[in-house]
This record gives sequence, C-alpha cells and structure tokens, in this order.
Amino acid sequence: MTNRVYNFSAGPSMLPVPVLEKVADQMLSYKDTGMSVMEMSHRSAAYLEIFNETKALLKKVLDIPDNYKILFIQGGATQQFSTIPLNLMKNGKADYVVTGQFSKKSAAEAKKFGDVHIAYDGSVNNFKHIPTQDELDIREDASYVHLCANNTIFGTEWKYVPDTKGVPIVADMSSNILSKPINVSDYGMIYAGAQKNMGIAGCGVVIVREDLIADHKENIPVLMEYNTIADNDSMYNTPPTFSIYVLGLVLEWIDSLGGLEVMQERNVKKAQLLYDYLDSTDFYKAHSDKDNRSIMNVTFTTPNKNLDAKFVKESIAAGMTNLKGHRSVGGIRASIYNAMPYEGVEYLVEFMKKFEEENK
Amino acid sequence: MTNRVYNFSAGPSMLPVPVLEKVADQMLSYKDTGMSVMEMSHRSAAYLEIFNETKALLKKVLDIPDNYKILFIQGGATQQFSTIPLNLMKNGKADYVVTGQFSKKSAAEAKKFGDVHIAYDGSVNNFKHIPTQDELDIREDASYVHLCANNTIFGTEWKYVPDTKGVPIVADMSSNILSKPINVSDYGMIYAGAQKNMGIAGCGVVIVREDLIADHKENIPVLMEYNTIADNDSMYNTPPTFSIYVLGLVLEWIDSLGGLEVMQERNVKKAQLLYDYLDSTDFYKAHSDKDNRSIMNVTFTTPNKNLDAKFVKESIAAGMTNLKGHRSVGGIRASIYNAMPYEGVEYLVEFMKKFEEENK
Repeated sequence: MTNRVYNFSAGPSMLPVPVLEKVADQMLSYKDTGMSVMEMSHRSAAYLEIFNETKALLKKVLDIPDNYKILFIQGGATQQFSTIPLNLMKNGKADYVVTGQFSKKSAAEAKKFGDVHIAYDGSVNNFKHIPTQDELDIREDASYVHLCANNTIFGTEWKYVPDTKGVPIVADMSSNILSKPINVSDYGMIYAGAQKNMGIAGCGVVIVREDLIADHKENIPVLMEYNTIADNDSMYNTPPTFSIYVLGLVLEWIDSLGGLEVMQERNVKKAQLLYDYLDSTDFYKAHSDKDNRSIMNVTFTTPNKNLDAKFVKESIAAGMTNLKGHRSVGGIRASIYNAMPYEGVEYLVEFMKKFEEENK
Repeated sequence: MTNRVYNFSAGPSMLPVPVLEKVADQMLSYKDTGMSVMEMSHRSAAYLEIFNETKALLKKVLDIPDNYKILFIQGGATQQFSTIPLNLMKNGKADYVVTGQFSKKSAAEAKKFGDVHIAYDGSVNNFKHIPTQDELDIREDASYVHLCANNTIFGTEWKYVPDTKGVPIVADMSSNILSKPINVSDYGMIYAGAQKNMGIAGCGVVIVREDLIADHKENIPVLMEYNTIADNDSMYNTPPTFSIYVLGLVLEWIDSLGGLEVMQERNVKKAQLLYDYLDSTDFYKAHSDKDNRSIMNVTFTTPNKNLDAKFVKESIAAGMTNLKGHRSVGGIRASIYNAMPYEGVEYLVEFMKKFEEENK
C-alpha cells in the first residue's frame, strides 16, 4: 500500500482501500453513464439504481425488519439530537442514559423540547463505566430511552441491550454501527453519522420503527419531520447523493467479506491484540472498565502527560496518525474501525512495546 | 473527452473535468498525507488547511466584505427555508417574493414560524415573469424580504436588486451563485446548495451579515442557530468535509480562469447562442419573459407534447442527458451552469436545428 498511513482517527476515519480505488476509477464516468456520480440528478435512473441498491444492501447487512424505515439524513448525529425529541417525545417525557460527551449533548438538546430525566449519569467516574441493568433508573411513562451504544471519546461500549419494560430504545450507533451483528428489533430507532464505519461526513442513517413516526410535534422544520422524509423515500429534497454512493460501496465491501459476523470477528481480534497487551504491562493504563471496553475506540494513557505527548509525536514519525486522545480523557486513543487492517494494530502494538522499552 | 456526455441536469449537475481529475488523483492520498480527504479528521492540520483555503477563496471570488460570516451548512437550501425565519424574523414578520416553486416552498415553511406576507405572487402566469420594482408590495416593518435569485424550474432570473427601503434582502442563489459577479452588500443574506455551480449535493453555503445573527428564537435545534455555527466556524459538529474540499477545487478552477467576470462572459455567451436560436424560429417557444431570462436554465417547448418527448428521447441517443423539463413547465430545460462548455451548447443548438428540420 504505497505511501498510505495507518490512520487511527476517531472520525472521519479510514476507509477500505478497495472502496477508494473504485471511487477513483468511477470519478470521470460511472459505468457507462458518461458522468461522475457527483454529477447525477438524484431523480435519474442511474442514480436511483445506486440509491435503491444501497438501501437494499443496508437492509440485508443489518438484517432490518420490514416494519422499519431506512432514512438517509444530513446534519449527522447532532441534527438527530434535535429531531428525535421533536418526533418521538410523544407525551413530552424522555429518559437519557448519559455515558459520554455525545449522550450528554443529546440530553441537553432534548431538554429544549420536553421533560428529560437522566436515567444514569456516568460523569461521576469520567465515563469509564457503562451502567448495569440495576444502575438504570428508567421512568415507565417515558416516550423513549436514549443511549449511545459506543462512546468514541471514552472508549466504552454497551455489551447488552437493557430491559426497558417496553419503552422504546433510541440508540446513537455512530461509532459502532456495522461493526458487529445487532438485533434491530431490540430498538425503536437506531441512528448514525456515516463518517466512522459507513463512509463520508455529511450523511447519516436513521432506522426507525414505522409506528413511532406516524406523527410529530406541530410546526417543526420540514426536514425534521421523519414521516415526510419517509414518505418521500429520503428525497423530499436533494439527498447527499455522492455520500450515499460511497456508503453503498462500503456495504458492498462488508458484504463481500462475509457480512457483520466476519466484521465482528475481525474487530474483536484487533481489539483483543491491543487490550491483551495493555493488560500485560503496568506502563500503559486502559481508561475504560474491563467489562465495557469498546472494540472500536481503545483509550489509554502512558505514565504521564509528557510521555503521552512524546508517544503521539513519535507515532506520527512512525507512519501512524491521529493517536492523540480527546482532551477530556487525555492520553492516547486508537480508533480501529472496520477499515483498519489487523496489520495496523500489530504495527501499533510493536511501536508501543518499543516505546515502553525506551521510556520505562 | 472520452465517453463523457453533455449533462444538462438542473442539479446535481456537471462539474469541471479538471476538478474530477484532481479528485480522482488525490483519492488514495491527498498530497503527502497518506490518506484520502474523505478519511481526514476535520480537526487535523491537513484538513484545516483545505477548509480555510476554501473559505478564503470563496471570500475572494465573491468579494465578500469582512462584516459577513461564511457558513458551510448541510441540508441544502430546504433546511435554510426553516432556519432563516427561526433566526432572522426578528419581529415575527417577513415578506416573500414568490417567483417559482422553491420560493413558494420557502414562504410556506416560514409561515410555520411567523407572519408571512407575499410581496408578489408569480403563479398567475406560471412563473414566467420576475416582478418589476413597481410590482413589489413590501411591508416597511418586515424583518426581511426573501427572494429566489434564479428559478431553476422556470428559467427566470432577477436582473436587478430591488429597492426594499432598508429591509434586508435574503436571497436563495442555489442555481446562479458563482455564475456572475454580485455585490454582496446588497444582501442581508445569501444562501445556496452546492450541487449546481459549487460542487456536491449535501453541502451548502450561507453568507450572512453578522449583525443579523446576533440572536435567534429560543429553543431551536442547535444546528439551526446561525450564531452557534458562526462561533464554531462551521465546526460545531463534523462538517461535510469532502464536499467542502470539492467546493474548494471548483473555486480554484473558477479563480484560475479569471473569476466571476469571466464566468459571466462565458455564461452569457452560451445562453445567448441558445436564446438567439430560440428567437429565430417559431418551432420552439421560450417559456420565460424576454427581460428576465435565466442564463443558467433555459426552458422552452416544441410545438406539442409528443414532440417534446421525441426531442428528449433523441437527445439522449445523441449523447445529451437530462433535457426533460420539470413537470410543472413541461417541454425542455437545458441547464447550462459554469461547467457546461460552449461546445455543449453548440452541440445542442445543432441538434435542435436538425430536429426542427425533421419535425416541422
């Protein structure tokens, strides 16, 4: 892979090389159309084929039941933080599980539109922990319970689906969608920005049980009406056409490798390599609790801040990028999404061993 | 230009070939970064350079004064239809000039949020006319006057800036931005989706006088707060990074050719060729009034609907696409944005002559 780096960015992040190669190949003319996908009318037959195949492939790969709508949206997860309460807070009440910065933001945004109850607040231990079933305080009359399935900044991940006694779960899966099989029926709604495991920033996906979007609050911005978007098959206005095409190529790549079971196997193997090494040494310290470690974002520190900075600097010189941790955790963060090859993690672990030797 | 077609799509639409070639060239590695622009963290130095250069180039090419904020937005013009009243309808009143389908939609959306007065309604003559100064009925106490500078569907374009007696003009320039020089100071706000003259669908630009966005209605969706977007330099959340990069390449292309004066010269020459021919024959009939003809979207009909359909069918066989008019006008629409070469219009006119000969 000539002159490519191992890019550990938390998002936008690494994409599979075969996807990039296909995008480049088709840039001047997609198949025999004589134009780039960027140049296609969203109403043209050529584009609608791309659009429909992408949607069908997402349905296949995630095994999405027929009573769920698949929507392509803009504005990323952040726009959904507003759109969710405007549509799903049927009785003005919703519960939020706060396990990181984005779930905190989503709860704050929802408070603009109704009565928000914090079902668990993970800030007490700097978000190293995902609540157990017993630690959750969910109101029986909440319209929904919101959670963030994987916390990019802190490196934690839900390993179970909580029992909410029938209250629909709305899950932000921006940083772990397509990393493993999930049971879509466990959720009322799943949403994710594309820029981690699915493609390009500026596009996102909403998967929502159709009975939940029959109505919405009155007089809300038209692009925030889920039923309008669904009724127009995500084409009420021009959708992010090119980003949806890239998502389709990513899905093709996943499907060709064997789907989400294979992704999970690969991802667990990569994460295991890194966590096993972290557990074998006292030099590095993993941030998150052992039983809720993310297989997508691995966060850890060296013995002190100076060494953290030295680590980052030397990692860049060694051909790795974006290993600097988020300011709210510090230290190092290695984001190892689907597109990160096993060799990239091996290379990182070798580097870590050498760095430990030289600095312990 | 091997196997490229002349693409007359109204949007998404043709892009300059040098832009597509550069995108393809840089797909596996942008300069010496070892990654695609798609894969770059929006906070990385490499990406921030792209972002800042794009913004600086837009400021240069459009000659944007210092007291205007440049925002990169998602959701296209449609999302702005909601965002504008939520931010700029300071006293709950706004006036809308309705000259086509999109200005009609923007007025309908604004009615959700306040008192909307229609300053002119062009539906009486199927939107073939742009109002003169005398035909405009603008309230002195309106917070702003909204107009659509170029009507993609109907092929009309404003040829003057109305005197609104100090009421700020908010202009949707989605289909003619970057086609000619404008005086930004004539407007309170200019906005546009990128997918016609600027790049890829899923990205847009807002250029707004900073005093107009000091505040907004309370408890609105966070991504609709212009001041929040401005305070965070369009990075409150992950922006559509790749689309902004393509916009930068399009701006470089415009700048390298000599800027908007040259664009205008080229565009006028292309439109003139087409309109001169339309005026020279009774076979085809131009839709819009002579004094407000768009230089971006040229709409016309053949003698009857059967011939319209035949024209479209044969034009595809001749290597031209997307010439079918919008259902609300019928007939033919040739969108000839910046990226359409003069040769494309010449080719179309030759085809039209031949078609006339064969079918008159």
